[in-house]
Amino acid sequence: MSRYEIRIGGFGGQGIVTMAVVIGESSSLFDKKYVVQTQSYGPEARGGASKSEIVISDEEIDYPKVIAPDVFIAMSRAAYLEYVHGLKENGVLIIDSDLVNVESELPQGVRVYRVPATRIADQEVRSKQTTNVVMMGAFAAITKAISIDGLRHQMEERWPKFVKINHLALELGIKAGEKALAGES
Amino acid sequence: MSRYEIRIGGFGGQGIVTMAVVIGESSSLFDKKYVVQTQSYGPEARGGASKSEIVISDEEIDYPKVIAPDVFIAMSRAAYLEYVHGLKENGVLIIDSDLVNVESELPQGVRVYRVPATRIADQEVRSKQTTNVVMMGAFAAITKAISIDGLRHQMEERWPKFVKINHLALELGIKAGEKALAGES
Repeated sequence: MSRYEIRIGGFGGQGIVTMAVVIGESSSLFDKKYVVQTQSYGPEARGGASKSEIVISDEEIDYPKVIAPDVFIAMSRAAYLEYVHGLKENGVLIIDSDLVNVESELPQGVRVYRVPATRIADQEVRSKQTTNVVMMGAFAAITKAISIDGLRHQMEERWPKFVKINHLALELGIKAGEKALAGES
Repeated sequence: MSRYEIRIGGFGGQGIVTMAVVIGESSSLFDKKYVVQTQSYGPEARGGASKSEIVISDEEIDYPKVIAPDVFIAMSRAAYLEYVHGLKENGVLIIDSDLVNVESELPQGVRVYRVPATRIADQEVRSKQTTNVVMMGAFAAITKAISIDGLRHQMEERWPKFVKINHLALELGIKAGEKALAGES
């Protein structure tokens, strides 16, 4: 993996920035990669789509912006519509399948994985706030771009008071990711 | 303010990434600016200096990396030594004066403001974890680059359970910043 680009899009309150920070820290501290993690805010993004980005590399990173993402995690339809077009050919698209409907605008050659992260967080973890943790688990299981041990460790560091619920959310996310990978969803 | 560049340096656990995220969100959502907020992690940074950066602009931001910071907030001596040299001529240097000693290596033309953020958090707020909030208050008071109302609002959003202690930390940080600005420290 010389350079791996991740984009996450959604709306405010979904914890997209936190996801990117945790993925970035985990990849750097645990997987020993170089990481640049960026979020952009602009007047046009407010109320609509917001995004955060992570570039992971075995070598030092000269250009910190995502050029064509290897993977795009879309957590809202607005973010999907705004950011899907840059996705790399044969790139990976992970969608929150309860919030994003991609049927009519899917670019060619994209591999789509459907993860009902919001529903899992709400109904199975019983905490909608863990949606981003569910999605991180699914992301790690689908792409293998970061280690699950690193993710688990970094979440414990960041949220020491919510270890139990976050572990549950992560495990359910991993399962959902594996299921999506096996083509069952 | 066409383009304003902020760099924050310190060590892990000081909440440097969070500072940059909160300053970036506040500037975007409250001050209606374009913002790009970046953190880089590399093997060389571990155990040593880490940094996060914010670019604020009235216009869309093409180049997301800090070129020569207008302000550098140094929260550890290692970070100070590693990152001070890029500071803009006549730039602003804000240091945690209990952790950073700058006397011997200070670049010419730099304005230095000393803020004992760690000591204020520890002794006056009675929570060392609020050091980054103290420093954000001082930063806002010294540079006026972001609005204090925006900062206060964004902190309430982010930490709804710690409103009272964070308000205290912010107010003490603002006072310390005003004192440093008046040349009393």
